[in-house]
Amino acid sequence: MTASVWINGRPGRWIDVFDRGFQYGDGLFETFLIRNGTPVLWEAHMARLRRGCERLALPMPDPGLLYDEALRACAGVEAGVLKLQVTRGGGGRGYAPPREVEATRVFSRHALPPALSVWRQDGVRVRLCRTRLGINPALAGIKHCNRLEQVLARLEWNDPAVHEGLMCDGEGFLVEATMSNVFWVRDSVVFTPGVDRCGVAGVVRDWVMHRLQAWGTTVRTVRVKPTVLVQAEEVFLTNSVIGIVPVVAWEDGRWPVGPVTRRLQEAWRP
Amino acid sequence: MTASVWINGRPGRWIDVFDRGFQYGDGLFETFLIRNGTPVLWEAHMARLRRGCERLALPMPDPGLLYDEALRACAGVEAGVLKLQVTRGGGGRGYAPPREVEATRVFSRHALPPALSVWRQDGVRVRLCRTRLGINPALAGIKHCNRLEQVLARLEWNDPAVHEGLMCDGEGFLVEATMSNVFWVRDSVVFTPGVDRCGVAGVVRDWVMHRLQAWGTTVRTVRVKPTVLVQAEEVFLTNSVIGIVPVVAWEDGRWPVGPVTRRLQEAWRP
Repeated sequence: MTASVWINGRPGRWIDVFDRGFQYGDGLFETFLIRNGTPVLWEAHMARLRRGCERLALPMPDPGLLYDEALRACAGVEAGVLKLQVTRGGGGRGYAPPREVEATRVFSRHALPPALSVWRQDGVRVRLCRTRLGINPALAGIKHCNRLEQVLARLEWNDPAVHEGLMCDGEGFLVEATMSNVFWVRDSVVFTPGVDRCGVAGVVRDWVMHRLQAWGTTVRTVRVKPTVLVQAEEVFLTNSVIGIVPVVAWEDGRWPVGPVTRRLQEAWRP
Repeated sequence: MTASVWINGRPGRWIDVFDRGFQYGDGLFETFLIRNGTPVLWEAHMARLRRGCERLALPMPDPGLLYDEALRACAGVEAGVLKLQVTRGGGGRGYAPPREVEATRVFSRHALPPALSVWRQDGVRVRLCRTRLGINPALAGIKHCNRLEQVLARLEWNDPAVHEGLMCDGEGFLVEATMSNVFWVRDSVVFTPGVDRCGVAGVVRDWVMHRLQAWGTTVRTVRVKPTVLVQAEEVFLTNSVIGIVPVVAWEDGRWPVGPVTRRLQEAWRP
């Protein structure tokens, strides 16, 4: 399956060079898992997109229109990835947006990572990135298109055996991985970093937190150094495409695929 | 003069939706003043572009090729603005760039701001933005395309009488304005904020600092709160298009157009 693209509802592949997405990264995106012709966790993704639009003062495209377009893009697809990008549209030169904004919406469909089932079953190896996340509450939590920090972090390694890179904020506190959120378990408590200063509030991160709370498990959002992982009993990553993937190795650290991870994976049946 | 655009050396207006500039803001830009068919301070802009490319591990396009393309875009233009954008090119979904990067280069030509001579002569009014700049030395100083902080800051006002917005970093220290650098004078010393944690190292900022040093004037890069401006004798802004523009008003503060500003303006003869 090669990528198929729809721009403002029509098949296409080209964007106006003055689109503010190209000029300034002035936009947002959502990445959906496709299952049986449907984007998974649609409502949760729309809620985050809406929060992002509010934060960036960007007019939210009509969710009904988006859903129709998403369904068309997912039609006949048993399993895949759908990316939606919403930008502030055309705007010429200069940071001030035009008075009347017409958002650009781009849907693109992609194949699932081929090794996904292996990652889920056997777990993955991670590294710690030197690239830090700048602290800025105005941009934290939302999934905006200013992603140079993630690009720089991802440039730090090309060993295909390393699946992900953990990232700290400018003060050295663990936040997330380049494309996923991170959780760990110790003494029956599940921990994950807060994302109110930087980082992305992942849709599956939210799903996991709610599911754990529904099971009566204590979940704590914390601000700690990454070395805390050494003491963890299990570590796992989440994002919309991978779902829940165990981390089994980081430098000298080795973790088993633990019971909390496996129970979440079983509950996660998109 | 409406905008004219050249993409990879050819007239055009459309960018691949998978260009990493559109997907992630994964690129750099330079904004030149055009004078008599020539981009002003070409070498200084190229030096900053090269630093940006090194920082982002982006292959620097051949400067000779860029210069040829720039001259073509400036041909016959007495005064105007030339923007060059260089992105990491196509790359599909995912932060990891492709092994072989073919940078995208976009030149676009624009008109000068019509009120420019009034700004230079009479000075401008500024405000202090609530939007903060995240601190990240890895992205500081270079002119990259992740500009949501500037967009958010510029969204804070639409009073046309206010020309610029001063911006502080996440810790409250003055850094720059949304599209220009800021200087002030007190007791014969000229001050400007450092741009090693965030902000852009402006080409005219460098020019001003070198020129002042050549005149034997003390220039200090400092990390101070914006209230320090209240005690200043003169305040001015710099960027490649406006050159040197006096600031005459900020909230209750009023400044005359001072002798240092005027002397720099006279020396600045692009």
